[in-house]
Amino acid sequence: MTTARFQYRPPNFDAPPLGTAPAARFEAATADGVLPDGFFSTTNLPTYVKVGGAWRRPRLPRMDCVIVQFADGDLLTTEPRKVRRGDLVAVGKAEDGSEGIFVHAEGFLGGAHSANEFRFMQTEVSRERPVDYGTLAELLGEERERGGLAVWVVGPALVHARAREDLIWFIERGYVGALLGGNAVAVHDLEAAIFGTTLGMSSTGQGVEGGHALHMRAINAVRRAGSIEAAVREGLVRTGIMHALVTHDVPYVLAGSIRDDGPLPGVLSDTLAAQDAMRGVTARATFAVFVATALHAIAVGNMLPAFVDAPVPDDVRPLTTICVDQTEFVVNKLRDRGTHQAYGVVTNAQDFMHVLRFYVERWEQARTSGSPRPR
Amino acid sequence: MTTARFQYRPPNFDAPPLGTAPAARFEAATADGVLPDGFFSTTNLPTYVKVGGAWRRPRLPRMDCVIVQFADGDLLTTEPRKVRRGDLVAVGKAEDGSEGIFVHAEGFLGGAHSANEFRFMQTEVSRERPVDYGTLAELLGEERERGGLAVWVVGPALVHARAREDLIWFIERGYVGALLGGNAVAVHDLEAAIFGTTLGMSSTGQGVEGGHALHMRAINAVRRAGSIEAAVREGLVRTGIMHALVTHDVPYVLAGSIRDDGPLPGVLSDTLAAQDAMRGVTARATFAVFVATALHAIAVGNMLPAFVDAPVPDDVRPLTTICVDQTEFVVNKLRDRGTHQAYGVVTNAQDFMHVLRFYVERWEQARTSGSPRPR
Amino acid sequence: MTTARFQYRPPNFDAPPLGTAPAARFEAATADGVLPDGFFSTTNLPTYVKVGGAWRRPRLPRMDCVIVQFADGDLLTTEPRKVRRGDLVAVGKAEDGSEGIFVHAEGFLGGAHSANEFRFMQTEVSRERPVDYGTLAELLGEERERGGLAVWVVGPALVHARAREDLIWFIERGYVGALLGGNAVAVHDLEAAIFGTTLGMSSTGQGVEGGHALHMRAINAVRRAGSIEAAVREGLVRTGIMHALVTHDVPYVLAGSIRDDGPLPGVLSDTLAAQDAMRGVTARATFAVFVATALHAIAVGNMLPAFVDAPVPDDVRPLTTICVDQTEFVVNKLRDRGTHQAYGVVTNAQDFMHVLRFYVERWEQARTSGSPRPR
Amino acid sequence: MTTARFQYRPPNFDAPPLGTAPAARFEAATADGVLPDGFFSTTNLPTYVKVGGAWRRPRLPRMDCVIVQFADGDLLTTEPRKVRRGDLVAVGKAEDGSEGIFVHAEGFLGGAHSANEFRFMQTEVSRERPVDYGTLAELLGEERERGGLAVWVVGPALVHARAREDLIWFIERGYVGALLGGNAVAVHDLEAAIFGTTLGMSSTGQGVEGGHALHMRAINAVRRAGSIEAAVREGLVRTGIMHALVTHDVPYVLAGSIRDDGPLPGVLSDTLAAQDAMRGVTARATFAVFVATALHAIAVGNMLPAFVDAPVPDDVRPLTTICVDQTEFVVNKLRDRGTHQAYGVVTNAQDFMHVLRFYVERWEQARTSGSPRPR
Repeated sequence: MTTARFQYRPPNFDAPPLGTAPAARFEAATADGVLPDGFFSTTNLPTYVKVGGAWRRPRLPRMDCVIVQFADGDLLTTEPRKVRRGDLVAVGKAEDGSEGIFVHAEGFLGGAHSANEFRFMQTEVSRERPVDYGTLAELLGEERERGGLAVWVVGPALVHARAREDLIWFIERGYVGALLGGNAVAVHDLEAAIFGTTLGMSSTGQGVEGGHALHMRAINAVRRAGSIEAAVREGLVRTGIMHALVTHDVPYVLAGSIRDDGPLPGVLSDTLAAQDAMRGVTARATFAVFVATALHAIAVGNMLPAFVDAPVPDDVRPLTTICVDQTEFVVNKLRDRGTHQAYGVVTNAQDFMHVLRFYVERWEQARTSGSPRPR
Repeated sequence: MTTARFQYRPPNFDAPPLGTAPAARFEAATADGVLPDGFFSTTNLPTYVKVGGAWRRPRLPRMDCVIVQFADGDLLTTEPRKVRRGDLVAVGKAEDGSEGIFVHAEGFLGGAHSANEFRFMQTEVSRERPVDYGTLAELLGEERERGGLAVWVVGPALVHARAREDLIWFIERGYVGALLGGNAVAVHDLEAAIFGTTLGMSSTGQGVEGGHALHMRAINAVRRAGSIEAAVREGLVRTGIMHALVTHDVPYVLAGSIRDDGPLPGVLSDTLAAQDAMRGVTARATFAVFVATALHAIAVGNMLPAFVDAPVPDDVRPLTTICVDQTEFVVNKLRDRGTHQAYGVVTNAQDFMHVLRFYVERWEQARTSGSPRPR
Repeated sequence: MTTARFQYRPPNFDAPPLGTAPAARFEAATADGVLPDGFFSTTNLPTYVKVGGAWRRPRLPRMDCVIVQFADGDLLTTEPRKVRRGDLVAVGKAEDGSEGIFVHAEGFLGGAHSANEFRFMQTEVSRERPVDYGTLAELLGEERERGGLAVWVVGPALVHARAREDLIWFIERGYVGALLGGNAVAVHDLEAAIFGTTLGMSSTGQGVEGGHALHMRAINAVRRAGSIEAAVREGLVRTGIMHALVTHDVPYVLAGSIRDDGPLPGVLSDTLAAQDAMRGVTARATFAVFVATALHAIAVGNMLPAFVDAPVPDDVRPLTTICVDQTEFVVNKLRDRGTHQAYGVVTNAQDFMHVLRFYVERWEQARTSGSPRPR
Repeated sequence: MTTARFQYRPPNFDAPPLGTAPAARFEAATADGVLPDGFFSTTNLPTYVKVGGAWRRPRLPRMDCVIVQFADGDLLTTEPRKVRRGDLVAVGKAEDGSEGIFVHAEGFLGGAHSANEFRFMQTEVSRERPVDYGTLAELLGEERERGGLAVWVVGPALVHARAREDLIWFIERGYVGALLGGNAVAVHDLEAAIFGTTLGMSSTGQGVEGGHALHMRAINAVRRAGSIEAAVREGLVRTGIMHALVTHDVPYVLAGSIRDDGPLPGVLSDTLAAQDAMRGVTARATFAVFVATALHAIAVGNMLPAFVDAPVPDDVRPLTTICVDQTEFVVNKLRDRGTHQAYGVVTNAQDFMHVLRFYVERWEQARTSGSPRPR
């Protein structure tokens, strides 16, 4: 380990202003999905609520949600739409503890002990800043070693661009704990598996006769099979990303959108059901990689805490979040919407996957041979 | 009228190869939502199917769908997921009539009599090409005069960017026949109506205290009211885009996505239900304007025929489609996915709305005074 | 005047650390164009040098230069290449006065009294932030009224995009104190004046027969006339930007680049001569507008102080700098290279010119009628 | 060799219309640098001029120039500014041979035997199209083997982005026949060599104390040494791109621009002198790679023929031109300005260099071991 790492230090609860803070207040929701006035709106940072004289961290932290206290004492961060009439919802606007709720921002953003694992890089996003693939590879590798769950969120450009084989490699080597995407990623991947094309374009980029209908034919074939898993089982699909996920038992969520053709069996066409399934993954995620998707990156960014929670506060650590896009725009948008910890890589999805794989292979070799981290 | 317009000329059905073409073939679907092998996949161009010795145009044309023949003779273009077991689905891959189905591509794309109303402009999309706002304004104005339905598809940047007041102006003056968008457009607009901010940023671009939660409070207030219409009726919402739509009885569809907070009442969180509602609009649309949205523009582009259908073939005319975005990328993507007729305007949404309104005001003045089109 | 403005407050020279600072040190250059080791490299912020017991501001401030003290006591900010052997060059690396040189950064960047006239806007650059054209128009109008010199730096896209007529309007109305650009701006403008095309494309965007050679023919015609002024005088050029500059006696500099065809007579093909001519303008500039040019914007940005100098320190004021480009990239690059005061407008050049003119017209009307600023 | 290659076929000069074409006409220039009316403006495609009953290809083809016939019969393509009074300049506007000049466009653009070596890829430029690095590597490798001259045209982002080491590798391995760039590339490279930073940012992207002046100090150090070559010889510069060029005797041209600080010794600050030096290289170039530069890419694109000339027409072949940029814009601009043969790679400069090197290494290994091209 050559990189000095972040050590989270919880706030001092005995010193003012926390030492003298009042208990947090809760009010009952008056109708299903309707919050009391003055509800406390959550962030993705470590948050402490004073209940029964103690400061506690609500479970399943994320932004743009509320904190509900259940009869059994459970403190949960939950979407407003899930609040039921009578549920006790935390109220207050102050984040400094003066109303019994404390958001520990300086523990993660800025300050001498920034939570950014990449703090030795500039945080600004630019195509002109160097990308430290060596560190990215090391962080991803170590996450696998410590048994974390790396969630990959991918857009269809990744399939177009033949980074498909590299993503399969990452799946097979255990670097993908879960995959989140949409109908299009799976459609393009399955079209490639069945017909050797994506959107009617061969792997060398040439159009093929009748190509514009091939993605429809791929969808129809999988619908006939009944499910993606069945299509793999029956031998209709013998290669590709979905094949790798199914055969390696890696969980995935395909969330529906209004752009979808089909959709494929297994796609959650209800966006609220999709959000729930996605959050089932993000609640367990300890690492995140977003490649070539604006919609899914921002959706997942909204759900993802900035930190990996832990029973002992000292073990709380930043949730490394890498966002890859062709332009600075998506990364900046992600950060504008609160995912401050996102580390931006401004490049082509194909090249990112290729170079990252190359560095992870080198990291594996160095690991095996016991030698220090390659530079 | 200074601009020579497109005149559609149907193909000669008596001449070869159409004169000697066989009847189209149909096969029954063997299960709900599963198509027969070799189904014919539609495009967005005028399409003729030979049935009972006559060439007929199926109703409700759009791309990536199939053609179903009902017992009563009705020929319908429909989504594969809506096909029921036993439905008769057109099969064949040829588009030249040799299998009884003819796609009249040259009638609309290329050729001496191109369907592009903007054929005097280069079709290439670039920030460096001049935008002929005078012609855009004239086309929009004439569409209103002939009683067409202009569908506007808008992204949230339009609200951020204070083009909001210009869009309200277009709604009030009758230039918006229907509006399609997502939860975010409405949330930002309602936040602005209730709190005077969008995503916590004032209209001059400054952040306000506690701003990050204001969109959540706006959503909650409308949820408490029960619907956007109720929020307008109760006086909670007194200004804005949604207010203008409701008070002027302009239909709208808010389609859900996985990025949504809330969602607002009225948002169709099921993407298939949203597609159906959107298509209810696009099937009647005669003009389309897409501003600052990739997801919705491509979704609507997929649904939109390239032409306005008519009982008499000679009256078929191109469906003018304008796509405004900050970069060439979205417009090119739209065209890559088959919406070839899209005319791209590469600019900032705020400025587009401002300049277009200015030209439409001039067009109205010229119209009133009986003078020719301003240049 | 509705906008509270910036008031510069010079540092307190009597208090520590300035009160006890040593005199600045100077060392002689040992060869032409070669600086002594440890030379002080300038910024574009107000800078004070302690000489003869007094703190003085060197003349003609700009970044990436050195400070030379002449025998007559003159303190000049000058390019290293202009330093002659024996010239006395200020040395030192500290900017806090501890070596006799003080850069007054907090007077202009950040702090409660930021120098940014647009401080009520976010300083971040984004296509999604609203542009306050009302304030831009007011600032430009007031600058004309107080007799300032507004330098416009423009790229050829402005001519392509038919914002040409708007720029002519600004020239004719006295809003352009000087124009800086390259060969291409003038070539496109003169091609339009002579042939009605730019790069062989008509004003509606259509290609014309033999169009690719028209810019060469335009250059040849002006070369035959001998100068742009002669071409205007002889009636070869009767319209356009160059015509307006010549007939309104507005100074301009056309700087050469390796991309140039021709070049036109009057283009300074030597880049050092061009830099000198440009700096002759920027040294007098009190306002700057950059439209659709990366090369020239960054070149001028390097030369431009962040402030308008004044005999009395209290009258020092920020030099309003507006940078218009289609993407965030150029504006961010400009700021990365030290032109922190640049206010970015992310839009199409044509639309910017159109909307700005519209707001300036409204400002003029309000001014005339004595009414307050339009909103 | 797995890729079928282009075979140029000269036009049939005996068949009409060429067989009956008149001789080309020439007119004398009436003043230095002023062309006769109706001069023929060249393209970058193979061009034949009928002189003395024979069709001949003028030497040193490029676009936006004229064809001059000298007393000794030499036919030269030359810049208009170099034409002297009395020189005989070809006149005519027709490119079809009817005035004695024939541009063989269909031999290179479109048609069944397109000149694009990458004709199996779509010619459209998009971040979503796959890049065939295997073929790029093979083409570059074969060019080295046949003794061609690959000209690399690079922007400063390549140095920022630590692709510096990869470019050094290409220089050392003989893949760089000449390098064209500006002052900034060399300044950043030399700053890195002397201080370990670029624009004051370390190789991991961190700012260093006093960093903003380091590029000025690097320039000063090299100016003191007298030349880049002397700085290498004296040991001031021991690593980097310029070091590799000097020590491997690879010719380079550093062209000046108005953005330049310094400039460095050896930079051609006169843009016409720089153009002449650059054309000295492009006239011999047989392959071109443009990375991360708009100004230089377009300048060189203007100078570069679309083909590699040869004594025997049958040996004429396309001049492979690869243009790498972060956005589609630069590549499209290059093609809009006539460099139709440019093959666009839309990615980050750092990643391009890294992946290309990786594929070239694999190509070398395959070459050595005698095995076929790796896929």
